Amino acid sequence: MTQWIYGFGNGTADGRGHMKNLLGGKGAGLAEMSHLGLPVPPGFTITTEACTWFYQNNQRFPQELAAQLKTALTKIEQQLGATLGDAHNPLLVSVRSGARASMPGMMDTVLNLGLNSETVEGLAKRSANPRFAYDSYRRFIHMFAGVVLGVPHAPFEEALDDMKRHAGYRSDTDMTAENWKEIIGEYLQIVKKETGKDFPQNVDDQLWAAVGAVFKSWMNPRAVTYRNLHDLPHDWGTAVTVQAMVFGNMGNDCCTGVAFTRNPSTGENAFYGEYLVNAQGEDVVAGLRTPNPITLKAKAEMKATEPAMEEVMPAVFQQLCAVRQQLEKHYKDMQDIEFTVQQGKLYLLQTRSGKRTAPAALRIAVEMVEEGLISQNEAVLRIEPKSLDQLLHPTLDPKAKRTVLTKGLPASPGAASGQVVFTADRAEELAHKGVAVILCRTETSPEDIHGMHAAKGILTSRGGMTSHAAVVARGMGRCCVVGAGDMVMDEYAGTMNIKGTTLKEGDIITLDGSTGEVMMGDVPRVQPALTGHFATLMGWADRLRTLRVRANAETPRDAETARRFGAEGIGLCRTEHMFFDAERISAMREMIVAKDQPSRVAALEKLAPFQTKDFAELFAIMDGLPVTIRLLDPPLHEFLPKSENEMAEVARLAGVTVAYVRQRVHELHESNPMLGHRGCRLGISFPEIYEMQVQAIARGALQAVAHGHTVLPEIMLPLIATEQEMNLLKQMVDKVMTAEMMAAGKTIDYWVGTMIELPRAALRAADLAKHAQFFSFGTNDLTQTTLGISRDDAGMFLADYQRANIFPHDPFASLDTEGVGELIRMAAERGRSKRHDLKLGICGEHGGDPASVAFCHAVGLHYVSCSPYRVPIARLAAAQAALKADPAEIKKAAA
Amino acid sequence: MTQWIYGFGNGTADGRGHMKNLLGGKGAGLAEMSHLGLPVPPGFTITTEACTWFYQNNQRFPQELAAQLKTALTKIEQQLGATLGDAHNPLLVSVRSGARASMPGMMDTVLNLGLNSETVEGLAKRSANPRFAYDSYRRFIHMFAGVVLGVPHAPFEEALDDMKRHAGYRSDTDMTAENWKEIIGEYLQIVKKETGKDFPQNVDDQLWAAVGAVFKSWMNPRAVTYRNLHDLPHDWGTAVTVQAMVFGNMGNDCCTGVAFTRNPSTGENAFYGEYLVNAQGEDVVAGLRTPNPITLKAKAEMKATEPAMEEVMPAVFQQLCAVRQQLEKHYKDMQDIEFTVQQGKLYLLQTRSGKRTAPAALRIAVEMVEEGLISQNEAVLRIEPKSLDQLLHPTLDPKAKRTVLTKGLPASPGAASGQVVFTADRAEELAHKGVAVILCRTETSPEDIHGMHAAKGILTSRGGMTSHAAVVARGMGRCCVVGAGDMVMDEYAGTMNIKGTTLKEGDIITLDGSTGEVMMGDVPRVQPALTGHFATLMGWADRLRTLRVRANAETPRDAETARRFGAEGIGLCRTEHMFFDAERISAMREMIVAKDQPSRVAALEKLAPFQTKDFAELFAIMDGLPVTIRLLDPPLHEFLPKSENEMAEVARLAGVTVAYVRQRVHELHESNPMLGHRGCRLGISFPEIYEMQVQAIARGALQAVAHGHTVLPEIMLPLIATEQEMNLLKQMVDKVMTAEMMAAGKTIDYWVGTMIELPRAALRAADLAKHAQFFSFGTNDLTQTTLGISRDDAGMFLADYQRANIFPHDPFASLDTEGVGELIRMAAERGRSKRHDLKLGICGEHGGDPASVAFCHAVGLHYVSCSPYRVPIARLAAAQAALKADPAEIKKAAA
Repeated sequence: MTQWIYGFGNGTADGRGHMKNLLGGKGAGLAEMSHLGLPVPPGFTITTEACTWFYQNNQRFPQELAAQLKTALTKIEQQLGATLGDAHNPLLVSVRSGARASMPGMMDTVLNLGLNSETVEGLAKRSANPRFAYDSYRRFIHMFAGVVLGVPHAPFEEALDDMKRHAGYRSDTDMTAENWKEIIGEYLQIVKKETGKDFPQNVDDQLWAAVGAVFKSWMNPRAVTYRNLHDLPHDWGTAVTVQAMVFGNMGNDCCTGVAFTRNPSTGENAFYGEYLVNAQGEDVVAGLRTPNPITLKAKAEMKATEPAMEEVMPAVFQQLCAVRQQLEKHYKDMQDIEFTVQQGKLYLLQTRSGKRTAPAALRIAVEMVEEGLISQNEAVLRIEPKSLDQLLHPTLDPKAKRTVLTKGLPASPGAASGQVVFTADRAEELAHKGVAVILCRTETSPEDIHGMHAAKGILTSRGGMTSHAAVVARGMGRCCVVGAGDMVMDEYAGTMNIKGTTLKEGDIITLDGSTGEVMMGDVPRVQPALTGHFATLMGWADRLRTLRVRANAETPRDAETARRFGAEGIGLCRTEHMFFDAERISAMREMIVAKDQPSRVAALEKLAPFQTKDFAELFAIMDGLPVTIRLLDPPLHEFLPKSENEMAEVARLAGVTVAYVRQRVHELHESNPMLGHRGCRLGISFPEIYEMQVQAIARGALQAVAHGHTVLPEIMLPLIATEQEMNLLKQMVDKVMTAEMMAAGKTIDYWVGTMIELPRAALRAADLAKHAQFFSFGTNDLTQTTLGISRDDAGMFLADYQRANIFPHDPFASLDTEGVGELIRMAAERGRSKRHDLKLGICGEHGGDPASVAFCHAVGLHYVSCSPYRVPIARLAAAQAALKADPAEIKKAAA
Repeated sequence: MTQWIYGFGNGTADGRGHMKNLLGGKGAGLAEMSHLGLPVPPGFTITTEACTWFYQNNQRFPQELAAQLKTALTKIEQQLGATLGDAHNPLLVSVRSGARASMPGMMDTVLNLGLNSETVEGLAKRSANPRFAYDSYRRFIHMFAGVVLGVPHAPFEEALDDMKRHAGYRSDTDMTAENWKEIIGEYLQIVKKETGKDFPQNVDDQLWAAVGAVFKSWMNPRAVTYRNLHDLPHDWGTAVTVQAMVFGNMGNDCCTGVAFTRNPSTGENAFYGEYLVNAQGEDVVAGLRTPNPITLKAKAEMKATEPAMEEVMPAVFQQLCAVRQQLEKHYKDMQDIEFTVQQGKLYLLQTRSGKRTAPAALRIAVEMVEEGLISQNEAVLRIEPKSLDQLLHPTLDPKAKRTVLTKGLPASPGAASGQVVFTADRAEELAHKGVAVILCRTETSPEDIHGMHAAKGILTSRGGMTSHAAVVARGMGRCCVVGAGDMVMDEYAGTMNIKGTTLKEGDIITLDGSTGEVMMGDVPRVQPALTGHFATLMGWADRLRTLRVRANAETPRDAETARRFGAEGIGLCRTEHMFFDAERISAMREMIVAKDQPSRVAALEKLAPFQTKDFAELFAIMDGLPVTIRLLDPPLHEFLPKSENEMAEVARLAGVTVAYVRQRVHELHESNPMLGHRGCRLGISFPEIYEMQVQAIARGALQAVAHGHTVLPEIMLPLIATEQEMNLLKQMVDKVMTAEMMAAGKTIDYWVGTMIELPRAALRAADLAKHAQFFSFGTNDLTQTTLGISRDDAGMFLADYQRANIFPHDPFASLDTEGVGELIRMAAERGRSKRHDLKLGICGEHGGDPASVAFCHAVGLHYVSCSPYRVPIARLAAAQAALKADPAEIKKAAA
């Protein structure tokens, strides 16, 4: 028989702290604290498995549950000598959610369950505190009605407000027992009116309804959204913990509070918490009353006037300090605890690993190593790699005042202030003059890249986390907020409107790329320091990892940033990005509209010097590190002029008519450009383009060598699907390189390889490895083709898909290891079978995603390449992957 | 040491008839005929391997070749007592190409090699026929200059025309020995002028240059085009046969001819051929003189006036008849032979399997079975499945009025109507626009092939049944009438005149390829009768095959055609095709622009009755056969209004503003619709659409059952990539089906399955098979995603790709078995591992492609589904696949 329920309390428990998957964080914490002998009110936890069963069986409970619950409840009743529903000595319980991972405030809770019109009188008498009893009952009615019966809050709040107004009260504490009694009458009326039924008086009905409601709250929209945002699976389910109530609201010798064993904001090793006298926990969370610091130190720092717990209840405070020490020593991590003091007696209601900022996490991890609490390896495993993002970008000064206009999706972190501009050209123009600008668009397209580059930040009203704007901005390390739906562009007026505020060019706004907030005016920022605890921890990580980390970079600035962040080479230099520059795009367009090969060659000759110079600079910066250069990839029409003016300019340059240019633009249009005439297909159709690029690589490398640099060029062919393509183009590269090296009388050690970004390339990897010296998995395109989903169009249904749990996470953000991953594994195996020293890397967006980095480690790739700003994330993720792949370390971490 | 050369002649040979891959068709045929003791002039064949070596080694010859050639040549010289280059008794040789498969006229040939200004005198003296000797020499100079030296034909032709005009001659036969001698002088001048060098007098130089030229002609543009059109690999290479010349042009006791052992047009078991007295083979092929029939029977049928060979050379004719019998009995197939009679002595120059029309192929195969020459299995293997296409299309209505302009030779059967065009380029241009054209030429040459392919029919004024036009048209299955002597082309005016009627481009004519009639206007056509030899052979095929054949069909008409052609079910009913009808598209559009779910449901309710009726009809027609219905697949915007009028109409119907409709159209736009919001993604986002469709299937099926039909609906989900999609939608289908069946109180046996059209679906096939009862490989989409090529855009580079031999054939026409095929194989295996009775089929375009059908058989699919007109092709291809998969049959067929 399945054990659906695990009891705890009285110095023992059925479960343990490591059973989070089964008992949820709260249930596991309570069980563990019981074992530690800490004062925990007795209770029991219904497992997450029961929740999963509930959802798999049309929202029914497992048959055995009723009997197990009865037994568990009886145990509590026996310990406390009180009985649920007993008119004289009623047991009251709380019913709380608790998932594997903390989802603060996302699911529902019911407190004071067990009260009805009869038991409330028993409680009043027994506590000799009718006000407390009636207060508890009205709280229960309100909470139960909201959570279980779906009654809105407004009527309850209005009723209470009315009464306080009539009575001239300013605060709930002014309410008398009689007032609460009267309110109870009104609340019961409200429930009857809103639901058509009486408020349930049967306490068993109350309990079962509350358990069901907590299970159901697992799938409420805000919980689903929270899991989507935090990459948590929807099939985990929540546990439900039913626990005897203790009361922080029985008088002034009572209080309730939360505390962190260290400062969660800075990581400082100091006890840190807040409490409220004569209150229930909900009062703290709901912000109805402002809580006070628990320590005198904090009171002084915050210049608070209200007394600290340390003064008011010194004995209990000392007890709490002892608990703090015990829990940290036991858990070897900073804990977030909830406690209640009932009539001078301390009770612990929760302990869990405390959420913390990235700087705090680093400090705590490093200091715990110094204190001998944990090992370096454990410290490395402690830090969530993605959280480093917060440290690498300039951030808003947390002390600054914010006037938030609206909130979009936090697409690329960092903070940026600047003047509003509406076009890429204008962004570039003003940026050249040294003006900080924020590029605001409905959505961006590849033509906007120069403007995105010029801007400090990008704001769009459409698009998701993987929209063009988001991906490009992350690649550039530009702060970016996308999908700010409240923002309406008026292109005719040259303005945008956000919830009634009209902004025009030149108005200053600030973006917070980590929260998605759009703020009025220039909010002050602070630069990150890559030193101290960060440097210490990254040093430990680098010693552990076997995966190399490279960066995707084209410009000297990106390359320099990449080195600063510890990149060990460039894994993807997208040569096409070098063509969007104003002075180059014309020659590029001239090349594309060329009528024949000679005119194409003439236009290419104008581009060649730019490319040569670009490559020479990149090689110089990356001195001694490999630089992987991808030959031209996107469809030619992406570069084409759209406006009549631009067409006229191209016609003039190319010596053709505007009509011809227009026709050429039309001819180059594609139904599905992603699957069109791009990548190596361009190199096959127009060999002169690739020849020019290879020549420029050769010359750039030779120049760098002449300046004393060590160059390691890796020439990469995109969108290869067949051996013949690889063979033909490899021959071309070798021919051009040989000619250039012979002309210069110098030899360069260069490699030729291919992207693996089509399923066919993965399947035929053994053939390709005959000619390719390296593979780089282009997982953006590989995801698109394997799943048949265009990244640009996915927004239309990806939300529906995540809601329906079809994708556990956005496959463009984190690798689909089952599908795309199998192709990667297959390609790695097949490629190596033909060439044992084949170098393998990944250069898609996934290269900076920790879960994907772990997969890359497992498959045995040699490196990942990601945007410069994600390099430290990848370094840490790679270290964790190496640790987790080591069974000894896994055991240690789980202990 | 590699043997590069195989000799033959004098009743023996180094090679045999089955060595076509090594010796080419011609070389193998000559070797085999030598073994059979037939009179073959001695010679030798340089292997295709030598050609491959030549191309792999920068167009050089293998080192050992020179010595081997010398030895082989000496053998011929010894047999004939003549020596190459000998001034008194010179040996003359022909140098001919010969690939594995016949490529008529595509590669080059040099005749009369060994002549120079010295040996021609020896030949004149020894033959006592100076006219013959000089004629041969001028032929040699012209041909060698064209083929080897690249000199254009025009100057030679002009020189000859000038001389004839001056002398008042009408025909080449009027030319005297002196005339030819004079022409030789002029020809040598032309060569000197065009090449800057003297015509090579060294006979060894002549020979090596000719061999190299033939090798090079393997890659000439028309040969490459021909191979692309016929799906022949470019890496086969050609063999070169060097053979002692025999002369059909030594006088009136000489002739040259070609013959088929049966009628290649009808298949009748009658000797059939043409000959020319006092001529060389090139005269017949080039259509310079119109040849005469060899038999009296044919002479009578064609109402020819010139004598038949049977009358002129009765003894040699009888000898030829004996050869006919011997060859047919030996090869067990209809042979196409070339012969020359020199001074009353018969020589055979070639034998090969004769090209024939599809009806002829069927008749010959069936009659040879009846004659006991071959088995039924061999007969089935004899028919090229694609050739059946010719039989399945309409022929002229015998009752229709015909305005016959003239009559030519019925060179390739079928009927075709279309606009008159006079050049191959124009034919191609108009055909691309969807215009049916008839290509009209004086005669065709290999440069016209692309136009012949583009045209519905071909009409020439010159040439016989074995002329270029006739041979090529039969190969392509194009209707063709040749030698319509009444037709006079006026190339300057761009018109042609037939007995006083002047036709210009765009005028419409009709050809009857079975009678040779050329008619004015568009003559109505009737459906073919699928009886006689066709029915007999298809009966044999059906007994052999294990693969079932279904059709892709939506309309009742298509379904009826499919059944008539032997389809065993519908493998793909594309429900979206049912929405494009005028009366339905409005409701469809209303549904798409719907603001919310209720308005969408309202619009769907208008569509539901149409769908129900459609399905009921389909089920009735396919009574007792399975019908696979795919739920809505394409992106919604495909249905959207484009014009303002249409938008207004939709706005009116849907009760929304035009601006709203315009906005919705804009919103639904996708960058890559192929990878967008389509297929089952629509079913996830808008469940009501799929629910309506399933309801209509259920109701249609129930109606058909009520009318006494047996229904086997198979509901197919498109674009599935994950198990969760499959699971969710399968549940939806079951729910709706159950509800409908319960309402009707009847049960229907239905299946639910999925397309496998994304690489991920193939990889995760085991997961999908948990829920899917069948898989249908959607190889169009699977090819697009596996190769990353949009079919709509592939035109931009697919030509470059076929030229560069990157794809051996268009992957959308014939399955990429290495890439896409591996995914199919993998999906079949993985799917079966989870569900052993999983039904597997294919419903992409490839279902009607014989090579792809063979692959499907090999992988163990249960059925292929293709367009109704390709069903018989697939049936035959399936039978051949079954036979070829049986080792015993392979051996028999190869024997």
